[in-house]
Order: sequence, then structure tokens, then C-alpha cells
Amino acid sequence: MLNCAVVGATGYTGSELVRILLRHPRVRLTALTTRQKDAIPLDRLVPGVSKQNPVQVRKFSFAEVRRKADAVFLALPHTEAMETAAKFLRAGKIVIDLSADFRLQSAPLYEKWYGVKHKQKKLLARAVYGLPELYRDQIQKTDLIANPGCYPTGTCLGIAPLLGDGLVEPDFLVIDAKSGVSGAGKKLNPATQFCEVDENFYAYKVNRHQHTPEMEQVLSEAAGLEVRVTFVPHLLPLNRGILSTIYLKKRPGVKVMELRKSFERAYAREPFVRLCPEGEFPTLREVQDTNFCRIGFTSAPDQDEVIVITAIDNLVKGASGQAVQNLNIRAGFPEEDGLLG
Amino acid sequence: MLNCAVVGATGYTGSELVRILLRHPRVRLTALTTRQKDAIPLDRLVPGVSKQNPVQVRKFSFAEVRRKADAVFLALPHTEAMETAAKFLRAGKIVIDLSADFRLQSAPLYEKWYGVKHKQKKLLARAVYGLPELYRDQIQKTDLIANPGCYPTGTCLGIAPLLGDGLVEPDFLVIDAKSGVSGAGKKLNPATQFCEVDENFYAYKVNRHQHTPEMEQVLSEAAGLEVRVTFVPHLLPLNRGILSTIYLKKRPGVKVMELRKSFERAYAREPFVRLCPEGEFPTLREVQDTNFCRIGFTSAPDQDEVIVITAIDNLVKGASGQAVQNLNIRAGFPEEDGLLG
Amino acid sequence: MLNCAVVGATGYTGSELVRILLRHPRVRLTALTTRQKDAIPLDRLVPGVSKQNPVQVRKFSFAEVRRKADAVFLALPHTEAMETAAKFLRAGKIVIDLSADFRLQSAPLYEKWYGVKHKQKKLLARAVYGLPELYRDQIQKTDLIANPGCYPTGTCLGIAPLLGDGLVEPDFLVIDAKSGVSGAGKKLNPATQFCEVDENFYAYKVNRHQHTPEMEQVLSEAAGLEVRVTFVPHLLPLNRGILSTIYLKKRPGVKVMELRKSFERAYAREPFVRLCPEGEFPTLREVQDTNFCRIGFTSAPDQDEVIVITAIDNLVKGASGQAVQNLNIRAGFPEEDGLLG
Amino acid sequence: MLNCAVVGATGYTGSELVRILLRHPRVRLTALTTRQKDAIPLDRLVPGVSKQNPVQVRKFSFAEVRRKADAVFLALPHTEAMETAAKFLRAGKIVIDLSADFRLQSAPLYEKWYGVKHKQKKLLARAVYGLPELYRDQIQKTDLIANPGCYPTGTCLGIAPLLGDGLVEPDFLVIDAKSGVSGAGKKLNPATQFCEVDENFYAYKVNRHQHTPEMEQVLSEAAGLEVRVTFVPHLLPLNRGILSTIYLKKRPGVKVMELRKSFERAYAREPFVRLCPEGEFPTLREVQDTNFCRIGFTSAPDQDEVIVITAIDNLVKGASGQAVQNLNIRAGFPEEDGLLG
Repeated sequence: MLNCAVVGATGYTGSELVRILLRHPRVRLTALTTRQKDAIPLDRLVPGVSKQNPVQVRKFSFAEVRRKADAVFLALPHTEAMETAAKFLRAGKIVIDLSADFRLQSAPLYEKWYGVKHKQKKLLARAVYGLPELYRDQIQKTDLIANPGCYPTGTCLGIAPLLGDGLVEPDFLVIDAKSGVSGAGKKLNPATQFCEVDENFYAYKVNRHQHTPEMEQVLSEAAGLEVRVTFVPHLLPLNRGILSTIYLKKRPGVKVMELRKSFERAYAREPFVRLCPEGEFPTLREVQDTNFCRIGFTSAPDQDEVIVITAIDNLVKGASGQAVQNLNIRAGFPEEDGLLG
Repeated sequence: MLNCAVVGATGYTGSELVRILLRHPRVRLTALTTRQKDAIPLDRLVPGVSKQNPVQVRKFSFAEVRRKADAVFLALPHTEAMETAAKFLRAGKIVIDLSADFRLQSAPLYEKWYGVKHKQKKLLARAVYGLPELYRDQIQKTDLIANPGCYPTGTCLGIAPLLGDGLVEPDFLVIDAKSGVSGAGKKLNPATQFCEVDENFYAYKVNRHQHTPEMEQVLSEAAGLEVRVTFVPHLLPLNRGILSTIYLKKRPGVKVMELRKSFERAYAREPFVRLCPEGEFPTLREVQDTNFCRIGFTSAPDQDEVIVITAIDNLVKGASGQAVQNLNIRAGFPEEDGLLG
Repeated sequence: MLNCAVVGATGYTGSELVRILLRHPRVRLTALTTRQKDAIPLDRLVPGVSKQNPVQVRKFSFAEVRRKADAVFLALPHTEAMETAAKFLRAGKIVIDLSADFRLQSAPLYEKWYGVKHKQKKLLARAVYGLPELYRDQIQKTDLIANPGCYPTGTCLGIAPLLGDGLVEPDFLVIDAKSGVSGAGKKLNPATQFCEVDENFYAYKVNRHQHTPEMEQVLSEAAGLEVRVTFVPHLLPLNRGILSTIYLKKRPGVKVMELRKSFERAYAREPFVRLCPEGEFPTLREVQDTNFCRIGFTSAPDQDEVIVITAIDNLVKGASGQAVQNLNIRAGFPEEDGLLG
Repeated sequence: MLNCAVVGATGYTGSELVRILLRHPRVRLTALTTRQKDAIPLDRLVPGVSKQNPVQVRKFSFAEVRRKADAVFLALPHTEAMETAAKFLRAGKIVIDLSADFRLQSAPLYEKWYGVKHKQKKLLARAVYGLPELYRDQIQKTDLIANPGCYPTGTCLGIAPLLGDGLVEPDFLVIDAKSGVSGAGKKLNPATQFCEVDENFYAYKVNRHQHTPEMEQVLSEAAGLEVRVTFVPHLLPLNRGILSTIYLKKRPGVKVMELRKSFERAYAREPFVRLCPEGEFPTLREVQDTNFCRIGFTSAPDQDEVIVITAIDNLVKGASGQAVQNLNIRAGFPEEDGLLG
């Protein structure tokens, strides 16, 4: 049993992490922390958990977490995670950081998009981007896993194989993404009050969302050259899930069957990626509360456009589930542990 | 044309008032105010309004509103309205106050339930409770109309006739009410963030909601003796509407037909109350965006219980529509002006 | 490992049953059936299940189910289950029937409320009402468990202890219940089309819902005398969950503390009933996707009314979860198997 | 006063038409029809309408409608409208057909996409596509107005000016559209049952929706050459509204300011199209229950992509409101009559 801590357990991703880890057969949750003063009984965070469970959510204490845990999940706001991560790394812990602080390899890019100084630049080289389907080998060997953003997870899985196999034009990547409201986090926000979201729908941060450089970094590596994406996120009046509709262009001479083969090659052995049968496309319902990414696509033989649609649960494969998948890879556990059923 | 002002035009009830008054054939909107510094163009508040409309929402100035308007609607938070109301009354205006500040005739009761001192106690005697179906005559003659709360409107209309006619026991008034989220106002609130309300449902302020004394005041007057109510409000995951399911007990010997006759007598000539056909009950859909209160009821001949169900739109009949209905009564306009279609 | 079948696996309760049983450590799902012709792969019913899982949903064959399963869950429409149940009982199987066919001990009562002849009257005496908190001992010994209706589960758990302990008046039981739409089942219905339910709310079958006699049967047994209930169900614009607000009357001299003691005595050792702390009431969110019933209550020392609020997930504790709980009791398994986390 | 009929008044578009026409100052509603046998009182269709209103919805009779109305709105299912339209035209009526039957100028194209024979091919030449912003002059002169589909309305208004002015590449038109559920009509459908739509989201008819040829017809005329579109519609878990996110490509040398000028030139005098300020994009909330189309767009000076976002209410500007706008144009009424406030 591996002793694990969740730092920042009361937000949406934090409590989802706790929910998953509680049923993980090889993990013992030994510390759950919050910035609030008062301890919170576990069954307030995760209704239905056994009353006998002795773990409580308590005010964060570095010393206590260091003493109690060997692996530490950080579910802290962006820009607040970097210092904490550094301290736990120095203490020899495995750190899985769910913030954006170590996702971008370039500090200037981070500073441009997040508007703050990066205070742990040296760690950037050590951090591995935790998208298992693309970086599993490196994840096995690092102590600092930068868990991907929710949008990049769903979109990169839908584009990277085709780009990597040279089947689609690298200068044409249009991503129209739609996310449930939990993606905005638990912070009080006039824009996410019920009466503003309910029965409403709109695009936001049109072509200027902070996940853009993250996608471009991953897709550039897949393509072997610098690519840029057109990315428009929208807010759905529902709780969980991201559906990304992706518009690509086949390179000349590419056949539809090659697209399917590319996806199959990439994901045939992946435990958490599922390709839809031909002519079918994923729904949010199918992936909610699961760690799966489902992918459907279509392309007419006589047209050059390719439409790829991917669906994930933003709190699971897009955050906490993927974090546990990363832990499983790093710790040598079966990759599905805690993540099926 | 009567010159009207809306003080506090940017909240949910304020902007609903503006929407209604804009189509009122005998009203000219001459002043819309807010506590914010920057002016807001009208078509931001009410999408779809003509671009040519010159009214803007501007920072509140007492002098300006006094100069421009003859009737003033106050859509301010509870406890903030009383001083403003007093000043406009002294300036000779008709004041229709949508807050709770003048609804309770008893200052101590107000202070107990709202937790603040009442600073305009003398005005309480002058204020008329603006429920037209019960107090139309007094409304015609006052300059200070205390527009009712959303819950009391729907529940009192369902109970008062039966109580007044002595058909139901006055010591047995159980009200199970369910309200849409706009009833909570526009104020930032963790409990009304989308992810907390969506797919959720619960009771709140169980038997301790501040609308309780307001109902008891109205129903005691109807009954001719002090009554108390059991009142449990619930929060519905939807925007607008209140449905109240009311459990009463017939007095010995009362026949079902007498109940129907009581409602018919009370509401046959009312423009905004509709009795459902026998065996039918109202839905929120039927009253949303209208000033109607719909009432259905049932009672078995061999049982003493009576079930009355009423539905209103909390922002219209439960607030802004009723405020305009009160204005129409006070100003001698046709009561439906601005409120039909 | 116990071999189990789900007959009627494609409805909402059927697929929920499959989801639960798939993670049950002592159950092997050997047959899933439907009335449709074509087989359905399991991961279409339960997204995210392992592709390797060999069970498919196949057209119902009595012979096949008899051969493959020792316990049979029937998730068939009311009035269709009775004959099938009889055949499996004759074949020596444990039958857990999720329909209403064996819940009422009185055939005439069944025929009055469901409008069809009861064709297996002799089995009624053998059937045990599967509400573990009240009938655990009998459930252990029967082969025909009549799994309770969703509304009766939540309401009886909130009333039975107080009635049984003589703390509340037996002639005053008012139940105002609100249910998510999945309670209506998967059948096509104009009333449950999205545009009719969304942003809407209303009462239905006011005081004439078919679950009424079921509650009266259970509560009469608890009270030791014939009782009747006032029962008004409402349709919530959400997927899952039932919240019941129950209005009762204390018997003379009863103290508030006795009410709490009654609930504690009844449920202290129950794995799936949780009493809220004083002053708190349950939300649907807390019980969704769990087998818990949460109960909160209040009563003022100087008033005779008692307000009890209970919450369950209608598809879990109100149907499929409770069915598995019943299986666990009957089979001698730990009662939480498959039902926690 | 013009005497008008609505044939098919009980569907979503039909009852929306009735709601609008009831407040139209120059229209008298003289006949409302349905295929059902029993008459329906008007206030069941449009809650809140005056009880005194004598119009009822009655079983369709050609003779009666011919006698009573001078203009006839057909809100019938696709393929059922064509014969009825022909008969009313022969009787000298103005026909505004909300079905797809006369939208496509090419009968073979209609037959390919709708799967039925076109029985009134000769009328196709006479029909005018009722998108006022593009075809106002022809609408003034015809007696057969083919009211546009909901998707084409919102997307063509966002693309046609730029295409017509030669500012964007005609071979690159990607439309990602999201619609509320009322767009699917009132017909019983498993896919639009509440539990299937609520908290769900997905694409449907990916690149094979029947509105595709309609858009291509309009946009080809605007471009002056044959164009094709990539069109992916999605189903939103809400009642009303269509948001279309459109991806275009600037032609070489085109400046951002030219795009804005093109929109301004096209829509400056349009009563129902509003251009968002720079950097802003429309929301569904702003257009719901209005006849407006709101358009926002962005394009970086150093990139060739253009993102245009348009929003309409699918039942108003996307159907019934636009039908009334067309009537106003044809009858010489002020274009806003019945459509503002």
C-alpha cells in the first residue's frame, strides 16, 4: 500500500481525487488538506463513505504531509502549486501536480499566459507532461508529473496520432470545444451562478484560452514541427464533460482507412481510449464518471476535411482520473487500478 | 404618460421591471439607476430593446430621480430601501417598494426576522401590503405600496379565500413551497453556483424563512384571528417560478363544492388569478413570464384534507409584475396594462 | 461466487443493476436479457466496462437463464413480472422482483391500483417486502423478494420508527415528495420529453399515486393499526433522486429528544441509513449514485408539528441498490458488498 | 387588420407563432388548426391569454381557413406542407410555409435530402426564400414564402456578407452549430426524452444534416459560385437557441477592418441583426424570446483565420418570428410589428 496525500482536497478536482483514491486497492489515503481552518469529516466531502474511515480533511501542514505520505497530489490553484511542489520534491516525494505550473516547458510562455513569474524554472526540465498515451515512458521515471489540462487531454488525443503519422496538414487545426461548468472550479464567480449558466450557452476566451500553448506544445512534438491551433472553448449548461469537435485537413493522397489505422495503432492497447465504430460519435453521457476518452471521426473519400470528435469527463480523464493513472504508471501498479467500475 | 423610475435596475427584479415597463402603454421610463459607477446601455439590460431608446442605467442620484419621475419603484436589498422610500415620499412621489422593509406592520417583528433596526417606523402605518386581490381598495389610496414577497403571494392567494370563508381549520396550514433560483437574487453565493444547484434539490430555512411572518400577517387578517403556518421552502434547479403545495383541513360539515365556490367568488373577476378545472393542477410552465397565479385544488368528499396547489412566476406575479399591477391600480390605469402578452 | 441474472437489463433500473453487480465481489453476472431481438454488447449498456467482459445482453430465454443463474433479478414492467417470477421460483431460483407485482399483500388492492388481475395470488403470502431496515429477518428466509417502490422506500424510512414508537399521531401523515425523471422509466412519454420537463415543475397523480397503498401497508404494520397517508408526488427537472418532505404531529407529551432517540435506535446499526446532525437536512446531491437514505428532522419544543425530510437515489436505494442489498441479506453476504464506493 | 390563419398551431413553432401574432397590432387571428379532433381553448396553448379571446384551435378544414383568412402560415411537418400550400395559393392566399418544402430551388436536391417526391415542382420557381436580410425585395412580391430553416438562418447571416464582399475564401466554410432541443419539434422521440438529453451533449448527423443544401444554396448565391460547407450540428441540454461558431479564412491582403465594415454595411439598417462590439461575442440568453440575430467575430491581423459567432432563438428568428417578419414585409407593415417587446 502506497501512502498518498491530496493537498487541496475540497475543490472539485480534489474531492474527485479522494473519491477515486478511496477505492484504489493499492493506495492508503493518509493526508487530506485544505487551506481552511476547520477540519472536515470525510463523509462530508464524499457522501456515502464509511463512517469508520478515520481520515479527515485538515488544515495543510507541510511537516504532517511529508511524514505521512510518499506520493503527493497537488490540487492547488495555478501559480500556487509551484513552491509546494518544490518542497515535496526536495523531501523525496512523488509529486503529481494538477495545476498548470509545470505543464509548459517554456517559462516565458508560462509567464505570458498565466501573468505571473515562474519561481521554479529549474524544475521545468524535470517535469513530465502526464498524458500517458503520449509520454508513458517518461512518466515511469520522473518524480514530477505535470497533469494535463482538461481541454488539452481531449483534443491532443484526437489529433496527435494523425499528425504524428503525417496524415493531416499541420497548418490546419481547428478545435471547437464545449465544457461543463465544473471545469471552472469551485471559486465564486458571477459567470457561473446558476441563473447565468442555466439555459444559456456561449463561447468564451475566443482564441485566447490559456490551454492553447499547452496543446501547441504537445501537438508540435507530435508533428515534429511548430504548429498552432485555432481554439474556441464554450460553456455548456451541465456539470461534467468536455466534447471537442476538431476540424482537420487530410494531406493529399491520404485514404480514410489510413486515418482509422492510425488511431487503432495508437490506441489498440490503451486501457482508457476507445475508438467509436464507423459512423458513430461519442456522447458526454458515455464518459461521465469514467476515465475514458472516446473518439469518433469521419472523412468523406472525395473531400479533404476530417472531423474528429472526442469526449472525456473533465474531472476524471481531464484531471483526477488521469492523475491516478499517472500514479499507477509511476508506481508500477496496474494502470486501471481504482479507475474501472 | 406617467414618468417612472426604477431604482436598482440591474438586479433580477429590477431588470424584469424594466422589461415590463418598456411595453407599458401609459408609462414613460425616465430614470433607471444602479449603485455601480458606470452607465449601462439599456439594450445590455434588456436584450432586443430598440437601439434608439435613450434611457440608460445610471448611478443613482436622488435629485435626478426626483426631477424626472412621478412614481418610483425601489428594487433595493432588504433594509436598504426604507430610507430611500422615506425621501421619495417626502418629495411627493408614489413609491412602490419591492423590498421587505414595509411589509410587516410590526416593527419588532421586522427587527426579529431581518436582524436590523427599522428606521422609518412611522411609515409602517401608511404602507399598504400590495396584494391586489386582497387589498385593492387600500392600494388605490396610498403612496407607499409594500410589494409582497414571492412566497407569500403564491401561498396567500391559495389559502386566504378558504380561511376567510371559514371553510378550513385556521390551526392547520402546511405549506410546502418550491422556488426557482432567481428568487435568491443576483448576489454572489456559493449555494447558487451552477454546480451546486444543477441536478440537486433540497429544503432550506426549514420552518424559519423570513417570509413566514408575512404570510401569517396576511392570513391572520383573512381569518380574523391569529394563525401560524408551517412553511418549508425548497430550491428547484431552474430559473423562474414558485409552486406551493398547501395542505389544509376542512372544517366539519364543509362540502367540496363550497371550496370551489369560495375560490370562484374570490377570483372570478380577478384579471390575474386563474382557477384550474377540476382534477387539474398548475405547472410552472404555464405561469412563467406571466403575471398569473394559477390555482388547483382537490379534496375527497370522505376525507377532511384539502390540497391546494398554486403557481406563479416569482419575478413577475411574485415581484415586478405585481409591482406594475399595483402601479396600475394606484394610477387608475387598466389593471392589465403592460402585463398581458 | 453466486451466478446472477438480470431479466430486463436495458431499462434504467436494469442497467443500474448491471452497473452495481459488475463490481460486486461475490456475484458473477451470467445472463442479461432483453425483449429486443438483437444482442447488445455490455459496454453499450455500461460505458467504461472492460472490453474483455464476455457477458452480452441477449433476447430473454427462460431455459438459458434457468441454466445459468441461481438468483434472478426481474426488472420488468409492472404486471409482466408475476408469471416470470412464478416460473423461476418453481425452478428453485432466488427471485428479486423489482416490479410492483408482489409488494401488496392484498390481491384486490393490487387489482384496484394497477388495473389488472393478479395471476399468482398464492405467491403473495410467500413474498417478503424487501425493505431491509424493517423486514431483514424475513428477507433472509424467502425466495421471493418484492423490492419496494422508490417513493415508499424514502418515506417509510422517515416515518416508521416514529410511528412504531408511538411518538406521532397515526392519523396525520402528510408526504410531499419530489422525484427525478428517471423514476418514470425509459418508456416513451410526451410528458417526459426534454422540452416539457426542463425548467418546469408540477405535481402529478395528486393523492392517487399507485405507491400510496404500498406506503399504507408498511406504515400500518409499523403503527399496529390501519393508517392512511396524504401523498403528493412532484416531478423534478433532474435525472435522479427523491426528496420527501414529511409533515407529522407529535403525540401529546412527546419530547423532541425522544424523536431523535427513536431514529437512532432504529438506524444506528443500519449500513445505509444516515441521520443528519441537528439542524441539517439532506440534499439529493449527497445520496445520488449511493445506496444511502439520509434523514433530517426538526420539531420545535412548543409546537406539535414534526418535519422529517428524507433523500434517496430512486435508482439505487429506491430500486437496484436495494435489490442488491436484499440479495446480500438473502445470500448471507456482507450487506455492503457492491454498494460502497 | 389582416386576417391570418396558423395551420398546425399545436407544435412548438405553431404555438410560438400564435403567441407572436396575438400581440401583432395589424393582424387578427381568425383560424388556428390542428390535426387532432378536439378543439383546444387558446389559453391552453398560450397560457396567460385573455379568457375572452374567442379563437380556438380546431380541426383543420380547408374551406373554413379559406373563408376566414387572407394570409396562411403553414407549420406542418416537412413533406406534408406542399399540397396544402398549393391549394391556398390557388385560393389567392398569401402562404408562408415554415416547412422545408419550398426552400430548395432544386427538386432533385429536395428529393435526395428529404427522401420523398416533390409534388409541386412548378411552385418552386415562385417560392422566395424568406431570409429578409438577403431577399427582402423578392419577399415583397411573392405569395409563397419559404421560411428558412433554423440553422441556415443563423449561419448564413454570419457568412453571406463576407462571402459576398469577397473577403473570405469560398472553399473554406466550417460551421460548428449547437441547438436547443425545441429545434427537434414536439414529436415523441427516444433521443429527446429528458433523461437522455439532460447533462448530456453530442454531435448528430455529422456532415449529413438536411439543412446543409439550404445553406449551400444561399451561400452560393452570395458568393456567385458554387460553395460547399462543413456542417456539424450538436444538441444542447436546453430549450431554445442556436449558437453557430463559424471558421473562415481571410483572402490574401484582407484587413480586419474590412470584415467589420462588410458586416456594418450589410446590417446597419437591419432591424433584427446586431453586431457585437469588438472583442465581444453573443450568448443564447441575449437572443432567447427575441427575433434578433447577434453576431460577433474576431480575426488576428497576422493570421488568416476568421471566427464568426452568431446566436438566434431557433423558434423566433429561426422560425416563427422570421415568418412574421416576412408577413410584415409582404403586407407592407412596419417590419418590427409584433416582434419587439
